[in-house]
Amino acid sequence: MTVEMHPSRWGDPARAAALPAEARGLVEMVFGLDERPAVEQPALAPSVLDGAVLAKIAAVVGPDHVHTDDETRRLRTRGKSTPDLLKARAGDLADAPDAVVRPASHEQVVELLELAVVEHLAVVPFGGGTSVTGGLVALREGYAGVLSLDLVRMKKLLAVDHVSMTATLEPGLRGPEAEALLATEGVTLGHFPQSFEYASIGGFAATRSSGQSSAGFGRFDSLVVGLTVATPRGSLELGSAPANAAGPDLRQLFLGSEGAFGVITSVTVRVRPVAEVKVYEGWRWPSFADGAAAMRTLAQAGLLPTVLRLSDEAETAINLADPAAIGGEGAAGCLMITGFEGTPAAVEAKRTAVTAVLAGLGGTSVGEAAGDKWAHGRFDAPYLRDSMLDVGVLVETLETATFWSNLGTLYDGVKGALTAELGDPAIVLCHISHVYETGCSLYFTVAAPEGDAPLERWGRAKAAASDAMIDAGATITHHHAVGTDHKPWFAREIGPLGVSVLRAVKADLDPTGVLNPGVMVP
Amino acid sequence: MTVEMHPSRWGDPARAAALPAEARGLVEMVFGLDERPAVEQPALAPSVLDGAVLAKIAAVVGPDHVHTDDETRRLRTRGKSTPDLLKARAGDLADAPDAVVRPASHEQVVELLELAVVEHLAVVPFGGGTSVTGGLVALREGYAGVLSLDLVRMKKLLAVDHVSMTATLEPGLRGPEAEALLATEGVTLGHFPQSFEYASIGGFAATRSSGQSSAGFGRFDSLVVGLTVATPRGSLELGSAPANAAGPDLRQLFLGSEGAFGVITSVTVRVRPVAEVKVYEGWRWPSFADGAAAMRTLAQAGLLPTVLRLSDEAETAINLADPAAIGGEGAAGCLMITGFEGTPAAVEAKRTAVTAVLAGLGGTSVGEAAGDKWAHGRFDAPYLRDSMLDVGVLVETLETATFWSNLGTLYDGVKGALTAELGDPAIVLCHISHVYETGCSLYFTVAAPEGDAPLERWGRAKAAASDAMIDAGATITHHHAVGTDHKPWFAREIGPLGVSVLRAVKADLDPTGVLNPGVMVP
Repeated sequence: MTVEMHPSRWGDPARAAALPAEARGLVEMVFGLDERPAVEQPALAPSVLDGAVLAKIAAVVGPDHVHTDDETRRLRTRGKSTPDLLKARAGDLADAPDAVVRPASHEQVVELLELAVVEHLAVVPFGGGTSVTGGLVALREGYAGVLSLDLVRMKKLLAVDHVSMTATLEPGLRGPEAEALLATEGVTLGHFPQSFEYASIGGFAATRSSGQSSAGFGRFDSLVVGLTVATPRGSLELGSAPANAAGPDLRQLFLGSEGAFGVITSVTVRVRPVAEVKVYEGWRWPSFADGAAAMRTLAQAGLLPTVLRLSDEAETAINLADPAAIGGEGAAGCLMITGFEGTPAAVEAKRTAVTAVLAGLGGTSVGEAAGDKWAHGRFDAPYLRDSMLDVGVLVETLETATFWSNLGTLYDGVKGALTAELGDPAIVLCHISHVYETGCSLYFTVAAPEGDAPLERWGRAKAAASDAMIDAGATITHHHAVGTDHKPWFAREIGPLGVSVLRAVKADLDPTGVLNPGVMVP
Repeated sequence: MTVEMHPSRWGDPARAAALPAEARGLVEMVFGLDERPAVEQPALAPSVLDGAVLAKIAAVVGPDHVHTDDETRRLRTRGKSTPDLLKARAGDLADAPDAVVRPASHEQVVELLELAVVEHLAVVPFGGGTSVTGGLVALREGYAGVLSLDLVRMKKLLAVDHVSMTATLEPGLRGPEAEALLATEGVTLGHFPQSFEYASIGGFAATRSSGQSSAGFGRFDSLVVGLTVATPRGSLELGSAPANAAGPDLRQLFLGSEGAFGVITSVTVRVRPVAEVKVYEGWRWPSFADGAAAMRTLAQAGLLPTVLRLSDEAETAINLADPAAIGGEGAAGCLMITGFEGTPAAVEAKRTAVTAVLAGLGGTSVGEAAGDKWAHGRFDAPYLRDSMLDVGVLVETLETATFWSNLGTLYDGVKGALTAELGDPAIVLCHISHVYETGCSLYFTVAAPEGDAPLERWGRAKAAASDAMIDAGATITHHHAVGTDHKPWFAREIGPLGVSVLRAVKADLDPTGVLNPGVMVP
């Protein structure tokens, strides 16, 4: 059973921890300590939904599956961006839904959407609640109420096709739940974003998630071969073949649609055999540019490991506090992690080929300990953020992607914008964690003192970084989606005609605008 | 300079040839000979466009680039499906455009579309003219005239990015022209559909073409990282990164849009180094099912050669007339072609691994001669079709795709529908030429006596085969696109809500419906 996340923190409270003494000393030295006591959670504004509407909802899903109590609504309030956490920590839960509704089937979702149209209720699909871009913060104005459409009851593995190597999953399955069910069939999805422990299958599809093993398994959107979608105008069943020339690929219109075009009620994905062997290794590079060039060489040679990541000098140096993480004391330069998963023969062959390329380009292996250290802590960063927020240090991440030839410009632009906006002391770390033949992602982690108005302070820094991305011709998001936070820059990225097309699709599928209003579509 | 194709035949008249004596004997034995003399081409109906409209068009593109003479209009009439050829052979060129207009730039295309809206002219983008699904046959009713928007002057290689390994190409470049320009930069697109010698970059994108090297290079849509599109409402510039999570992937809405959403005026594609080595090889399998299982094993092991094809028993047997093509006299079973392209080391490594898998699964190598034979004749089949039509034998192809577990059902269904509809004597051949981890394509070649009403006869067979595809849950087209011919089945494939979305996008981008009216959107 997945532990529910409180709106002010990430993850399982049992895994929360104060900063270790050594890290606390480092934080104090760089930022100073500014303990922020937990705020007593206030009562929520009462649900605006009256008994008649709630009864109609209950008639669809059953009375046990409509919740208006404070605690359930609180646990479905917003996502997990640092601004989301800061608001909750300040006692602001104004975006709480009026009711949490838990359908059990595609048919119930369809009925709920029909009801939402009649009653003019905003419907916010809820999978794992891990959005970091405001994807769960729907417009309230103009609606008779806001429903959190909680997919927690839709957790079935509907089918496994061992010949085609596909599996059909319901959207409410969290990452570990999906992998556990697939493992009973000897297969894996291989999708492990940092949010893996909480994020859901439906959310992966709706946001075009990308996992830490994307080099080997591909982005989530590339895993999807079929989708079922419920809309206020009925259902779509998409995916007649792995690929085709039957017009535009409509699957690609619903992947990334963030609940604004419909509710994804099942996803058919490519699966692979469970890996027999997993090996992770660290490599050191003289510079970020050298390491990035090596990644590009691997991608363009068709020689990608399962995992391929590269920290810049600053992110590597931060890990110096733990020498094991970067392969020994006093190590300079940049740390790369390679990971190989599969059959022993496939792992051996790929690793040998990759090792030859990396060594030939001037990389130095620092052994498996550094790789294992990364693999062990791969889902822990959000807990560390909570601990930092507890002592008054603002921590947030943002990410983008571009073509290889534009990488330096993008890196300098975003880092420069963040450091200029935040001033001293601020730390900006960066890594590459998703690579393609033609380009890669850049993922930034930022830490700075919260100051008196952390929300506004971060808002300015985020805007400056976002401007830098679009000014560089890059994307506003490689794998965090648009939500509400990225809309102005998303509009610049796709241009007015792109926005017009999205609005046209939205108007067609959701004429009264009940689906996650205000999210994704600029 | 590309030779212009006459509407009644494929390709370069200098390469047309009567059936070789041996083949002629075989055709006579199976179908009988029924010589069909060439029909004198009648004069076209005069252009309905008056001088005032033509002057406005000339003001955009220059007077030398607007053509209303019969010969130019004839050469822009319809595409290259067998029905297209049969109509032209019967002297029916009723779908000829009223004028052929040749813009030289994106800006001129935008201006032409604005003019088309004002004058209510149907605009049919023309790249290579190789559509086999009626993609060049626009509605005439309700329009003031039909323009063939001939992209023949837009043939520049606009940019090559050797770091990102991308190239930006104008849409009018034919396959060989694009490859020749790219070769001067040491790179290749690697896209070689059977229509390669005539088809264009814009057409590849607009129809989601798939080439004979798709196993190694990918489908054309997977090569595209950026697009520029001109619409009646202005322009779109898409492609900020190799992949992203910035909403739905709008590139995937224009790929496959067949001129109905806009005119693609440039395409940025992934490129690769020109191969140093190319090796093709034949393999023999006891049955089609055995060969298909081997393809599936390779795809799911991540061990795909550059080229991977498999003929069924019937297609293999037809090639018995040329023993070299299948690796020796009296060979039974099914012929597979594997091809490896790249550096000597990469080719050697991949070939060794593939050979081990294929031999282990019961395949028998029949050597490189069979592979070379295939590679040598890979673009010749359409010429053979003309020779068969000359002697009264109807020849046409159709194709589909599905998931591996559905392959047998789909094969039996389509083959059964064709043979039942056409009766004796009819020949139905099939091959697999595009494979994915989760499924593959099926490509059928049909030959039968034309009879007295070949168009109607083929229409019934095509409808029966198309019904069988959709009944089997497969796609109506893996790489031939929708055009006008596939619309009823495309509508079944994506359902009423899918159709509604396409209509909404069309209405938004092309409110007066001037873009290739009647094509693609059901």
